[in-house]
Amino acid sequence: MKILSFRNNDEIRFGPKVKREEAVWDVLAIQKELNVLPSFSTTIVEGMTYGFEFVEQMRKLVEAAEKSDNAAQFKLSFTTIEWLAPIPRTTKNIICVGKNYDEHAIEMGLGSAPKDLFVFTKAPTAIAADEQVLSVHANVTNSLDYEGELAVVIGKKGKDIPAALAFDYVFGYTIANDLSARDLQDKHKQFFLAKSLDGACPMGPYLVTKDEIPNPQNLTVVTKVNDEVRQNGTTKDMVHPVEEIIVEISKLVTLEPGDVILTGSTSGVGHGLTPPQYLKAGDSVKVSIEGIGTLANTFE
Amino acid sequence: MKILSFRNNDEIRFGPKVKREEAVWDVLAIQKELNVLPSFSTTIVEGMTYGFEFVEQMRKLVEAAEKSDNAAQFKLSFTTIEWLAPIPRTTKNIICVGKNYDEHAIEMGLGSAPKDLFVFTKAPTAIAADEQVLSVHANVTNSLDYEGELAVVIGKKGKDIPAALAFDYVFGYTIANDLSARDLQDKHKQFFLAKSLDGACPMGPYLVTKDEIPNPQNLTVVTKVNDEVRQNGTTKDMVHPVEEIIVEISKLVTLEPGDVILTGSTSGVGHGLTPPQYLKAGDSVKVSIEGIGTLANTFE
Repeated sequence: MKILSFRNNDEIRFGPKVKREEAVWDVLAIQKELNVLPSFSTTIVEGMTYGFEFVEQMRKLVEAAEKSDNAAQFKLSFTTIEWLAPIPRTTKNIICVGKNYDEHAIEMGLGSAPKDLFVFTKAPTAIAADEQVLSVHANVTNSLDYEGELAVVIGKKGKDIPAALAFDYVFGYTIANDLSARDLQDKHKQFFLAKSLDGACPMGPYLVTKDEIPNPQNLTVVTKVNDEVRQNGTTKDMVHPVEEIIVEISKLVTLEPGDVILTGSTSGVGHGLTPPQYLKAGDSVKVSIEGIGTLANTFE
Repeated sequence: MKILSFRNNDEIRFGPKVKREEAVWDVLAIQKELNVLPSFSTTIVEGMTYGFEFVEQMRKLVEAAEKSDNAAQFKLSFTTIEWLAPIPRTTKNIICVGKNYDEHAIEMGLGSAPKDLFVFTKAPTAIAADEQVLSVHANVTNSLDYEGELAVVIGKKGKDIPAALAFDYVFGYTIANDLSARDLQDKHKQFFLAKSLDGACPMGPYLVTKDEIPNPQNLTVVTKVNDEVRQNGTTKDMVHPVEEIIVEISKLVTLEPGDVILTGSTSGVGHGLTPPQYLKAGDSVKVSIEGIGTLANTFE
């Protein structure tokens, strides 16, 4: 299932993409109108605490809408809604694994990726949506850079998660652009500030449930700047694959439903080019991952 | 006003300390029973969005309770409640300024504190309460260390906050112990994982409103391990004082009500002793700050 979050009439809503249509099922409206289920979560993060039961509930709601006299009223066209990131607000900072591809570590001036997980965070105030126009923040940085990444969405609370059960804790996947102010990374050493500018974490367009992505280690990740291919990598090359990331982080930190883990950037960032090419007003960046879609943003 | 958060009958509550008594005013019960105000926030973070009006509302509730026939029913003795951290759950990670005292930077092996803000975060799942028994996490670290710190609680949403208005954005202060696994800091470089073990951010006992602490740069901070003084510093020695921290962070990151900023540790941490002395099961750590109180935890 491809789930999206959106704002409609000032309310934050979510629902599955309508198949073969550019529209979303407004599952909260279906439940309210048709009263299909005994109860239904009002936020996507609360819904995920019910695991795959949440997906089943949405399937039932869509089925009921399709059978109803006026299915159309429950479909909202993509042109009428305001898109949000799939998780519009995480309940802790976005967890980010840095330097998780050797070639990216090399282009950033390191010999190779570090052996141990390198984990920093981005403030949830940095979250932005697909198609949102973002600032290059020229008043505080002259080197905002893109990083196209696979994002893992956690669906279940967990600590000390064993490898064999790691994927039980995954709800699904989305795409993130880990926007990074290179000068501020240098200046402040720890990455939090440089990675947490407003809008510096666009995610989307969809949260794709894990059943549709049986192997997250075999996905092509392509980033284009102004339609020129800059990053063309594969998640095969992750130094620490998703399973290991979940195991190792959960040895130390309690994971919770709605937590988002960014798995690192492949090579080809603007900082690694000769000369470096940072984002400027007017640029567009598109990050595409097989089976998820394309996250597109323009900059001003 | 000294405000505390607590759990009573499975509900998270908050209220002002009763003057000259070891008890808290259950302001939610007062409002429910006596219906004093047209409306009142049900969480401390929501309350803070109303700024000092929130404090005035609590004053009115306490006054009404004192005048009521049975004031005693609205006072809960400290022995009957479960204490929580003043902000039991922050809505983003706890923001931490590291290496903000020269002598601490030196004991950690640096020549002096860095000129630029050094900011990392702790997961909100690490938050713990005064008097809570905490783990030394012997399965993942052999070097858990204490850091007694003044914590600033933000009361108002802000970006690009000017110096002259910085304290308008402060709601109050509390005490934090920034527990840190030294071996994991070394191993993972970025500090997030090493600083985010469960329970690694005890805070409390009170959130003291800013009117009671007119100058946060003139407070003694004393940390005792097993009643031996280990840290005895003053916030006068902060390299980046509170005002500057708020100005500089808000140039980059949007601050929000309920955000907590840890302002850095003075010297005297266990890692800096010869030989280093890390926390072990059975230890007690008490961090005292003038005008706020003492945050006490034991370890197992």
